[in-house]
Amino acid sequence: MTDKKWVAEVNEKNQETKALSTKIPHQETQAPERRKFLKQAAALSTAVVSASAIAAENLPPNVPDWQKTLGSPVNTNPYGLPSKYEADVVRRRVPWLTADSIASVGFTPLAEINGIITPNGLAFERDHAGVPAIDPNQHRLMIHGLVKNPIILTMQDIKRFPTVSRIHFIECPANSAMEWKGPQVGRLQFTHGMTSCCEWTGVPLKYLLDEAGVKPEGKWLYAEGADAASMSRSIPMHKALDDTLVVFGQNGEALRPEQGYPLRLLTPGWEGNTSIKWLRRLEVTSEPSYQREETSKYTDLLNPKDPDKSNLIGKAYMFSWIMEAKSVITFPCPEKPLKKQGKYVMNGLAWTGSGKIKYVDISLDGGINWKQAELNGLVLDKCWTRFSLEFDWKGEELLIQSRATGEDGYVQPTYAQLRKARGVTSIYHNNAIHTWKINKSGEVESVQI
Amino acid sequence: MTDKKWVAEVNEKNQETKALSTKIPHQETQAPERRKFLKQAAALSTAVVSASAIAAENLPPNVPDWQKTLGSPVNTNPYGLPSKYEADVVRRRVPWLTADSIASVGFTPLAEINGIITPNGLAFERDHAGVPAIDPNQHRLMIHGLVKNPIILTMQDIKRFPTVSRIHFIECPANSAMEWKGPQVGRLQFTHGMTSCCEWTGVPLKYLLDEAGVKPEGKWLYAEGADAASMSRSIPMHKALDDTLVVFGQNGEALRPEQGYPLRLLTPGWEGNTSIKWLRRLEVTSEPSYQREETSKYTDLLNPKDPDKSNLIGKAYMFSWIMEAKSVITFPCPEKPLKKQGKYVMNGLAWTGSGKIKYVDISLDGGINWKQAELNGLVLDKCWTRFSLEFDWKGEELLIQSRATGEDGYVQPTYAQLRKARGVTSIYHNNAIHTWKINKSGEVESVQI
Repeated sequence: MTDKKWVAEVNEKNQETKALSTKIPHQETQAPERRKFLKQAAALSTAVVSASAIAAENLPPNVPDWQKTLGSPVNTNPYGLPSKYEADVVRRRVPWLTADSIASVGFTPLAEINGIITPNGLAFERDHAGVPAIDPNQHRLMIHGLVKNPIILTMQDIKRFPTVSRIHFIECPANSAMEWKGPQVGRLQFTHGMTSCCEWTGVPLKYLLDEAGVKPEGKWLYAEGADAASMSRSIPMHKALDDTLVVFGQNGEALRPEQGYPLRLLTPGWEGNTSIKWLRRLEVTSEPSYQREETSKYTDLLNPKDPDKSNLIGKAYMFSWIMEAKSVITFPCPEKPLKKQGKYVMNGLAWTGSGKIKYVDISLDGGINWKQAELNGLVLDKCWTRFSLEFDWKGEELLIQSRATGEDGYVQPTYAQLRKARGVTSIYHNNAIHTWKINKSGEVESVQI
Repeated sequence: MTDKKWVAEVNEKNQETKALSTKIPHQETQAPERRKFLKQAAALSTAVVSASAIAAENLPPNVPDWQKTLGSPVNTNPYGLPSKYEADVVRRRVPWLTADSIASVGFTPLAEINGIITPNGLAFERDHAGVPAIDPNQHRLMIHGLVKNPIILTMQDIKRFPTVSRIHFIECPANSAMEWKGPQVGRLQFTHGMTSCCEWTGVPLKYLLDEAGVKPEGKWLYAEGADAASMSRSIPMHKALDDTLVVFGQNGEALRPEQGYPLRLLTPGWEGNTSIKWLRRLEVTSEPSYQREETSKYTDLLNPKDPDKSNLIGKAYMFSWIMEAKSVITFPCPEKPLKKQGKYVMNGLAWTGSGKIKYVDISLDGGINWKQAELNGLVLDKCWTRFSLEFDWKGEELLIQSRATGEDGYVQPTYAQLRKARGVTSIYHNNAIHTWKINKSGEVESVQI
């Protein structure tokens, strides 16, 4: 941090300092007496003393109302809730995005999120047939198919295995999907809010598969949820035996209903929909199962503008599992404009499904010049990483962008690169560099350049 | 993990497997027809076929009720809540511990917590005059006293500074205080539940002090909260300039009201009460302020049994800030008994205010033999660390203990060592090795040996 003052403008408030400065450990008993004395003194004086002059010099300290009375009793909420002043910090739907609210999306308010943990109440939600209300005592996980010992596990059985806790992001591949053809939604919550990052606790899937004994011909898993959509995906055995978890815990407590309570799969770094929620069944198979959600949906229809790739037109990528390196500036953003000129810390989030973030570059001029951002705090595998950069805003227009690079060397692409390779018929896997335009007023809008 | 099977007993349930194994993406239309066919077949047969035999062999898949109907619409709760089946996972008070519920404690249910993040709804709560309902737009932080530029900061001012996010535990020094004279409360939630661990986001205090310009004679801070208790402590300048934060974020969202919304101090690794909540004022002083809560309270009255320390009898430790290395086994525990013999993973939490946990040892025989536990997941500075050890329970009585060692070499003491040094008149800083007795029934009780 430099020596330059950050909030020099607040010094104009220093006339308040004296009024607030008296120690007030017992203000309830002292204040009324002192106030009374001062009133009498004023009344006795023949000089005209304005009330404000008394206030500044001699009145009791400016004690806020909430300090004058006892607060709410301890444990008023045995399960705590946010302050009423945070009522606007909620997940939101885009009404026109889905035909109804049963198969829809609740977006995380990224502009309001600090650090790398998303609180459970704000973790984004994507359901295909609503959220089932599952009784954990009745819930079962069956592992069968090409295994030596098919098994049915209760939640108690599962929790007896060795568990691990890891902080990973989840991102729906449809995150930023609305933006393929140009800016559609002028709010960070909607351009990028289909990702969250939590500490997940569960059992490595390899332990459960080891228990069942996968036969040599077992190369795939069919994973099925207990929701009314029977949401299901095919998972190749190499991922199942790598870092995939069967998860029951989220940020220290039980999974939330909309995150798969009581049990979900977690395939770190892969399309969110492969982390099957409300997990009830894993069938070991020799081939992919080609379920609806991996054929008609969650495939990437191609219409590349690159003439060398015309042979791909009308074809589609399937099993495009890994969520590629991506980043977004979370301050400033449309929800958090600049209110006056001066020094600020720009900050944002970067992530990649391939591993750790290596670095993030920032441009203030729409991608002409780049400057390396600072990575802040923990830099973990397949996890949100915070970055920041100080800047001094003099009231000019800026086109701010962030560009993430993964430890595998993959660089977040521009929109031009992405469209050249795929056209604009893809729905999923839009990880393009995003641009916020800061207007002279300090307002921020979503643009594409 | 060994090759030994963990849940061999569940294989007895395998007769259920076949009934559950048919893929059921469209069970609503298929199931009724198949059921009807089977009923007709049974009626036509002259052989007596039991209903259960039909069920096992031929009946449609056992589809749970919640999979047969649509779930709750997406974003039914814009701010999400736990499942109704988790209603028992809440903070609790010990009714006899405090004279009333305004100055009291809500304990974290440690037996139900996974990983190292405590969800905000369950973070322990210790208030001295209840929880004030503070309007963040009206809240101010004043920094004054021995400074060149006294300042008053709004929440917006504070958030403009560079911020950091760090995962740290907070522990009330009164954690385990009820146990000094022997086991008083037979529940992990009450023996150790005055600690939590969250990701905190805020501004390093040194940046704010730099803004105000501390004068050379400024060696201490008087930190005051905006609650009706004006809860306050003296903080030496070396801690203020080290890792102390002025925090507005907790696990990604705004601080919860009972954690100091909208602003608190965080003195990592130190007595929880020094992390002043609802922070309104920091006065730079040349000496400690000797407030009520650091003289009559939060001091450690001594009555050592060690004859060599008889000169200390009747004296007290003051400013005993650092929370020493401590640990506790969170499974098994009174709330989580063993239900049958077999293989288990014992696990627990360790932490130290001095830095990182170096290792944790576990005894199954009340401290005679020790075995090093595995540290699981992230091992961070002044942060909860998870440890675990596999064990095979054959139905015998066990006295299980964990013993934490910090990176500074400090070893968690026994009750005998602690009482020899201090007697039993201390209230605070009980970090003794804790013992759970596993009875032959598998029930777990708190004992002291």
